[in-house]
Order: sequence, then C-alpha cells, then structure tokens
Amino acid sequence: MKLALLQISAATASAEERLDAVEAALAAAAAQEAALLLVPELLLPGYNCPDLHATLAEPAGGPWQLALAEMARVHGVGLAYGWAERAEGAVWNAATVLGPEGVQLAHYRKIQLFGEMERASFRAGTGAPPVFEIAGRRCGLLICYDIEFPEHARGLARRGAEAILVPTANPAGFEHVQRLLVPARACENGIFVAYANYCGTDRGLDFGGGSVIAGPDGAALAAAGTGPALIVAELPELSAYPAEAVSAQLADLRLPGDG
Amino acid sequence: MKLALLQISAATASAEERLDAVEAALAAAAAQEAALLLVPELLLPGYNCPDLHATLAEPAGGPWQLALAEMARVHGVGLAYGWAERAEGAVWNAATVLGPEGVQLAHYRKIQLFGEMERASFRAGTGAPPVFEIAGRRCGLLICYDIEFPEHARGLARRGAEAILVPTANPAGFEHVQRLLVPARACENGIFVAYANYCGTDRGLDFGGGSVIAGPDGAALAAAGTGPALIVAELPELSAYPAEAVSAQLADLRLPGDG
Repeated sequence: MKLALLQISAATASAEERLDAVEAALAAAAAQEAALLLVPELLLPGYNCPDLHATLAEPAGGPWQLALAEMARVHGVGLAYGWAERAEGAVWNAATVLGPEGVQLAHYRKIQLFGEMERASFRAGTGAPPVFEIAGRRCGLLICYDIEFPEHARGLARRGAEAILVPTANPAGFEHVQRLLVPARACENGIFVAYANYCGTDRGLDFGGGSVIAGPDGAALAAAGTGPALIVAELPELSAYPAEAVSAQLADLRLPGDG
Repeated sequence: MKLALLQISAATASAEERLDAVEAALAAAAAQEAALLLVPELLLPGYNCPDLHATLAEPAGGPWQLALAEMARVHGVGLAYGWAERAEGAVWNAATVLGPEGVQLAHYRKIQLFGEMERASFRAGTGAPPVFEIAGRRCGLLICYDIEFPEHARGLARRGAEAILVPTANPAGFEHVQRLLVPARACENGIFVAYANYCGTDRGLDFGGGSVIAGPDGAALAAAGTGPALIVAELPELSAYPAEAVSAQLADLRLPGDG
C-alpha cells in the first residue's frame, strides 16, 4: 500500500482554497498510485480559528464531505481528513476516511482535546477510535494529541491496525511529538504511524511541519521539513521487518499478577 | 537529587572484578555527591552467561548483597543493581535498590523476560514493579525489556514515580530502545528515565552502550557513548519543566467510554 501525506500551510485561508489544495494533492497522489491521502486536523475550516468552528461546522454528509467524496472518486484515491462536525447539538473535532470510490470507511471524534481553545470549541469524543480496511491493510484513526498517549495507539494495535493515520495541528515548540512519540508509537506496537501536520502560520500560531510516516523500526519512511510538502511512501508488509528491529512484541506483554 | 550511572564493559569477567568496579564507581559518585548509582542488569554474575545464572545465583541477603550494602554505607551512596536471585526453587532476573546506609529500599523481579536465553535461565516475575523514595524523590524500578512496553512505566507514573531506574543489557542493533523508547517513556509520563547498559562484548554478544538519563522533555540530561563511562546528572524538580515541553499529561487521559 502506498500512502500519501499532505503538509499544507496553515495560512491557506478559505475552505475553498483548502478544497482546491486537496484536489491537487489527490491528483498528485493518483499519479504516484497512492491508495490514500492523509491531510491535517481540522483542515476544514482550519485549526486556529475558534470563531469559525461553530459557525462553519457541517453535518456528516454535508457539502464538504460531498465535495471531497467526489474528488476521491474522480482520482480513485482514498482520503483521511480532519474537519469540524456539527452533530447532536455540539461541535466535534472529527476525522473521516473516504475510500477511493468516495464511500465513507471510518469516522472519529477526537477523544483527547488539547488546550483551552479546543476545549471551548469542541465537545470531546467518547467512542473508540475506528479500525477500517483500505487496499487490503487494516488501519486505525486518531487525531493529534491522541497519539501522545500510548493507550490509544495500543488499543488500535490490539484490534489489528497495521497503520495509524493521524491528522494533526502541532504547533512549533512541540517537535518532541514527531521526533520521539510518533516513531515510538510505531516501534512499540510494531506498526506504521503517519502524522500529517501543518506548516506556516495561522493568525499568530506557528506550526512546526515535520510530518512523518514512521515504520515499525521507528525509522521514517518519509518525512517533510518545515514547508509545504507532499510525501509518499510504500508501506512494506510488517513481516518485512526483522524481529530485532521492532520493539516490544505485544504478544509478550505480561501485567503484574499474570501467571 | 543527583543520579550517577555506570556503563561497564560486559567483558568484565568475574563477580569480584564487577564488585570492585562498583566500589570504584560508588567512590566517584560520592565525590560528585550523587545520591544513587545505577548499574546494568545482571551485573552479578553477568548477562550472557546462562551457565552461571543457576550455579552462581544467590538468595536475598547473600554475600553479594552484604558486600554491596557495606560499600553503599561506606560511600554514603545508594545503589540500584541487577543480579541473579535464587528463591522459591527458581532463579530470577532481579534488581535491588540499597539506600546510602546499605538498607534495602526496593526489590523487583523482571516481568518481561526477553528471548530464549532469559526464558531458559529465569522464571518471570509476577509482582508489580516497586516504588520507593530516595533523597526525597519517588522512584520506580524496571529491568531492560520492561521499559519497551508503555504499560509498565505508566503503572509506575500513576503510582507517583518521578524517575524510573532501568538496569539493562541491550545488545548492539537494538539502539532504537535508548534512542526512541526510553526518552518517549520519560516524555509521555513527564518523568525521568535512567537506562544503564553495558558496552563491549561478552562471549560474542556485543552491547551498544548508549546509557542515558532522559528528562520529561525527552532530552538527555546525560548520555554515554559506546565505551565504559560514569555519567552523573542532577534531576531538576519536575515543576522546572514548562508544560509545553512535556507531552501528554496523565491527568488528561480519557479512554473510550469516559464521560
């Protein structure tokens, strides 16, 4: 399975511009025969715009999803994207995965809201992160701060996820996440973790870029710098990684009191 | 609290030579006013010597412990060390912490045995890793492979450990542990993790060195290269680390189904 990841400038202003950028990236991903394109958290309508989260949030199946599903179908590439969802009288920091025919494969509401802005804008999700299949591989979905907690990635690995897709909006100054924690999650679970961040500045908030697709040995299969980038990597079969390159085997885990 | 860590050559042959090396390191640690010295896994009688594990293993309070307790007392420095313990009709991959007066502060039997040699030599521990206090700081104790599983460090952090001491014997080729997983454990729990490895070669098995004392921001307070080394670092108060330098706050953790 080939995975594409779009690191987009957070300064990209309107939802229309962002939809255009996704379409261009889907076309490029299709040209490289990627099965899926991963883009950042709250791509629609944007991350650092609390004034817009409630006013622009859309329901599932709304205009954003319809437009993106059509793009995915036209290019024959799946899409995982973050967006502001209106549902159940609340606004959620959500992520959705569309298959290459535009059909919804997974939907998730961020469980670990980060900081005051997010807690003011969004209600925290309570459901388990989803596991879905694309291009014959089982994948899981988390959002940003979720990946910093080992429990959530572990939960997905236990349910058979071979790769975790993580739309994120990680500001500059928090680079320990992409440098240490994302590859550690991959390594400790023996899976792939793809972390799609913004670069650039949105209303005074700088983003660190550094999007990465980390492998089960903790090494980057592909990584972006601090500017806009589309990165693409083939995810080898997990069996291609020698056992000693992977860390703690989940099957080995013993907890105190285990016989 | 000042912490010292001894990276010793695995080629150091006899238990007597190893006891001498610990005494020299305790003297050096005392001169730097360290509260505690951490040394590798199975320092006594050695790691890659399965023929000796059963024949040389000692009970708690045996000659090794008596000798080390006397050294700790003479130098006024605590000691955390790995050793082969005979008890309950079995041999255990154990670690013990002695206080600066030679009194036993903690004892632990490795829960995550690694590989065929260890599983043949030792019975796996079933008890929870201990938390103890030294120099006014709460510390936890794990051994080697244990630290690769996020669950064990998390369990200690939940019980108030500010620092986790990890005697280890990590062969060359597994450097992702000290490079990624040890600092990730520190970062994701907002604590210190000290990982004391061997260097050199013991009966054909090469050790990678790279012992490290990692801080809550994931950065090394001190690190060794690939040769013998004594490293010493002051562990600042956890409150000295700005919140944004530390990763996921344990207090923030929400699991699926949490309200």
